[in-house]
This record gives sequence, C-alpha cells and structure tokens, in this order.
Amino acid sequence: MNLDLALMLDLLGCFFFAVSGCLLAVRKGFDLVGSVLLGSLVGLGGGVLRDLILNAGPPAAFSNPLYLAAPLLAAVVVYFVVGGVKRANRLVLTFDAGGLALFCVTGALKALDAGMNAAAAILLGVTTAVGGGILRDVTANQVPSVFDPKTMYAIPALLGSALATGLWYLGWLNLATGTISALLVFTLRMLALKFRWQAPLAARSWARPRFRRG
Amino acid sequence: MNLDLALMLDLLGCFFFAVSGCLLAVRKGFDLVGSVLLGSLVGLGGGVLRDLILNAGPPAAFSNPLYLAAPLLAAVVVYFVVGGVKRANRLVLTFDAGGLALFCVTGALKALDAGMNAAAAILLGVTTAVGGGILRDVTANQVPSVFDPKTMYAIPALLGSALATGLWYLGWLNLATGTISALLVFTLRMLALKFRWQAPLAARSWARPRFRRG
Amino acid sequence: MNLDLALMLDLLGCFFFAVSGCLLAVRKGFDLVGSVLLGSLVGLGGGVLRDLILNAGPPAAFSNPLYLAAPLLAAVVVYFVVGGVKRANRLVLTFDAGGLALFCVTGALKALDAGMNAAAAILLGVTTAVGGGILRDVTANQVPSVFDPKTMYAIPALLGSALATGLWYLGWLNLATGTISALLVFTLRMLALKFRWQAPLAARSWARPRFRRG
Repeated sequence: MNLDLALMLDLLGCFFFAVSGCLLAVRKGFDLVGSVLLGSLVGLGGGVLRDLILNAGPPAAFSNPLYLAAPLLAAVVVYFVVGGVKRANRLVLTFDAGGLALFCVTGALKALDAGMNAAAAILLGVTTAVGGGILRDVTANQVPSVFDPKTMYAIPALLGSALATGLWYLGWLNLATGTISALLVFTLRMLALKFRWQAPLAARSWARPRFRRG
Repeated sequence: MNLDLALMLDLLGCFFFAVSGCLLAVRKGFDLVGSVLLGSLVGLGGGVLRDLILNAGPPAAFSNPLYLAAPLLAAVVVYFVVGGVKRANRLVLTFDAGGLALFCVTGALKALDAGMNAAAAILLGVTTAVGGGILRDVTANQVPSVFDPKTMYAIPALLGSALATGLWYLGWLNLATGTISALLVFTLRMLALKFRWQAPLAARSWARPRFRRG
Repeated sequence: MNLDLALMLDLLGCFFFAVSGCLLAVRKGFDLVGSVLLGSLVGLGGGVLRDLILNAGPPAAFSNPLYLAAPLLAAVVVYFVVGGVKRANRLVLTFDAGGLALFCVTGALKALDAGMNAAAAILLGVTTAVGGGILRDVTANQVPSVFDPKTMYAIPALLGSALATGLWYLGWLNLATGTISALLVFTLRMLALKFRWQAPLAARSWARPRFRRG
C-alpha cells in the first residue's frame, strides 16, 4: 500500500480517536485545553506507542506536524457542535469505533513494513487500536471500555489486524482493501454495541457479576 | 545553552516534581518506599517519556545515576519536614508548578538539540512538563490536575515551551534566559492557581458541570 | 548466564504475572478477551517497558512469538480452574509475587548484558518487576499494590535486583543462582504478606491513615 495512503488512513484514525477523547472531556467537565490534551492523548497515544515499539526513530506524531492538526480540529469541532451529555456518551463509542477500525489496519501495516513477523504485526495492530482508548479511559479515571464485558471490543480489532496482515502477505493490501477492512471492523463493532454481543466471561460457569465503570 | 546548565535545570525540575509526588504519597497514606517510587515516577517519568520519544539511546535517568538522587532526596526531605495533610495538599501544587516550569524549558531544549522542528519541540516540551504529573495522578487513582477546569495548567507550559523554542532559534537561550522563562511559567501558574484563571469549557455555552477528582 | 536460561526465567515470570492479571480480570467481571488483554498487559508490560528503555530494537515480546503464549495459556488456565472471588483475590497476590521475583532478576540481567552500570541495572530490575503490576492495577482502576503500606512490595524486588547485579559482577550469575535469588525474593514477599511487614510511612511520626484501594 502506498505510504501516503496509509498516512491518510492513519490521520483519519487519529481524528476519530481525538473526537472520542474530546467528547469524553466534555462529559467529564474538562476545559478546552483539557479537551485538546485528552484528544491528543487518545488520537496520538496509540500511534506513539506503536512507533516506540517499532523503534525506528522519533514517532510520526512528533516528526510530522500534520498529526497535530487532528486533535486541534477535533477539539474545535466538538466545542462548536456538541449539545448534550447523553448524546456525547453515545458519540464517544461511535468515534472510538472509527479510530479502532482504522488503527488496527494501519498498525499492522506499519509493523509489516518495518519487517516484523505476522504474529507481531497482528499484536501491534491490536495494541495500536486499543492503546489510545485505554490511555483515554485510564486518564479520565474509569475502567477502559475494552474491558467492558457487555460488548465486544478487541475481537473486531483482532480480526481487522489479521485480515490486513493476510492481505499484505497476498500482496492485495491497497487503499481500497484497507478501507474495506476498516469498514468491516467498524460495522462489526457497531453491531456488537447494538446487539450487545458478548464474549464468555474470564472464568467458566460463573454468574455474570456487575461491572462498574467508575 | 551549555548542556551542563541544561542538566542542572533538568535535575532541579526532577527534584520539584519528585517532592510533589512524595507529598501526594503522604496525603494518600503510602509508606516511605511508596513515597520514593511515586517521587521517581513523577520526577523521572516525564523525562524518560521525552527521551524514549527522542529515541537517542537509554533515557538520561537510567544512564546518569545523578538523576536517582532527586527522588531519594525528595523522599527524605518530605519525610522529615511535612507536618499536615492540608499543607501537603497545597504544597503538591506549588512544587508541581516548579517542575512544570523547568521541564517545559528543558524538554523543548532537548528536542531542538536532537534536531526536531519547532512544532515538535514545543509539543515535546509540553509532553515532558505535563507527563510526570499525569503519571502521578493516574497512579494515585485521581483525575490528573492538568484536566482540572478550575485553573490553567497546560497553557503556562505551552507558553514556556514556545518561549524557549523562540529564544533557541534566536540564539539567545542560555542559563539566564532559560531560568527567566521557567520563572515566568512558574509565576503564571501560581497566579492562575490564586486567581482561578479559567479556560473556556470543552463545549460551547454549557453550564460548568461539577468536576470531581476522585 | 546463558541467554536461553534467562529467556526461560523471563517467560516463567511473564506467565506468573499474566495469571495475576487474568485473576484480577475474573474478580473485576471482565470477559475472556479482557482477561487475555489484562494478562498480556501485566505479563508483557514490564518487559516491554524494560526493552524500550534499553533501546535495543523492538521489545522481545513483539519479536519473539513465544512470549504471546504466556498470557494465552494463563487466560485458559484461569478460565478452567478458578472457582471463587475470595480465592482469586489471594491468588492474585501469590502469582504477582512469583512474577515480581523472576522479573527483578531478569530485568537486572538484561540491563547488565546491554552494558548499563550497576545503579541503572538495579533500577531497571525494580522497574521491570513493579511496572507490570502498576499497569495492571492502574488499568483496573485501583491504587497499585506497590503503594499499599500494609505490606512490603518494592523492597524484596530491590534486594533481588541488587543480589543479581552483585552475582553478575562476581561472575556467579547462572541458572541456579538466578533461580535461588528469585526464590529468596518470592519467600520474602510472601512472608511480608503473611506477617504484614511494614515500611515506615512517608511522613515521620504520623498516625497511619486509612489506605483505600478504590
């Protein structure tokens, strides 16, 4: 896949995650600067972690100023558009799903381009995709949504990373197939949210205990 | 700026941040070892993150044993001096402001010396300055003070990083101007605390919701 | 010490820490995927942090697929074996002690093999040993057990790192002495838990305040 196209998907993922961060900032009562910071942490955090692990020079978010535009734009959009806390809560999950879908693809791609093996690429794709969201929720002092047992979160990202890795090995990964993979992941995640698809609990034959975010 | 002088400002910043960590350890009822650890996390965390991002060998905190002196000294000073929780609470913010002021200057300087562009240097200065405090508050299980909408926190750091970057490009950055920049940031932050200067909230025309640390 | 033997101790440490993560996932009501993720974060997190700081190529957990087996195996074992929350709570601490004991030894060893000085090796051993547990507890939204003033946690790790570093300098560090060092650390930590050995609090002559995990 052309790297400029990978950059485009990556920037779009940053923007989606940044919006989810800014929306959470609204819900938590942070100010505009906190909104930019939480947006940056979520939008850029997963990618910075990915680039630190790849160990190939300073992370893209620091060497390419374009990346800074994503959280700034997200904070401005959220500032002018958002109308209510209820809606914000639902939108966090939607934009988060968009970031998740794009990052699992670009994360796997970057790892493969850096010469990692397939298992590492899939793992790094999932790490990139769930990393930003974990940073967001830990910083805002709530249990990360990736651990919410009421809906699937990591499984769509895992499938997306594996799909992108498979396509890369077949030489079929390009902007079209990459975008389709991301759309599949997004659809899967939204369906999991809507129909509350659940994975089995962490211990066999257990009553489902109450899960609290706080 | 002479690197030894940069080292001096950096060590002083480590010490200030470490004291803020040890004071929070007192307030949270941690033991002396927890005090050293939280002091290390806050004092060294921002700088380690900065050096990981610069990707130029192991972080200074690990290659130069002098850095370890800062949290050890901080824990000892706090152990013998601190008298009450109320006072501790206020002192956390004061020492935190000192660390913030020094780290936004040394962070930007280190990034520029490593060949980064101006936007990246300013971003890395802010990251270094707010990073340690975020680690401290997340570890102690409270929402980071950088997100507290009741006072400005990141804006002084942003101004300090931008000022240091500007001085560096003009060739005017030395120990005197670096220290003056840090003093300006410190003063700004303390005034923001005293007069409760506020940035606009993250969403337009909203009632200011209650913000809870816990 | 032969590197393959170091790898064995490291993998065993990963497994122990991963089990502690999966057990906490059970206690918190996460699902099976959350269990794998929290197990990975705890089992691999400390080591990834160590390898990022050593700055010698991508972390072992990403370049060697064997590391992924540890959290997967841990999640399966916990899924089939665990029977109750009370027991889970106690087991978390036991497996955590196993991981702590092995990681302080392998962390120091890896740092020394990478050419770091003694102080840095001891610090990195402690960082590796306590890092995964801090990530686990912060992610599950509770104050890390390393800060619990009711029992010693970091001191055994510090002694283990120092012991391994001393043995390495004497040329006596091999699988036998490395394993004995780890067993000593494990025993010390379990005794500290059983007899509630306490370090002095972070401020002198203070009433011991209540410490809350939540």
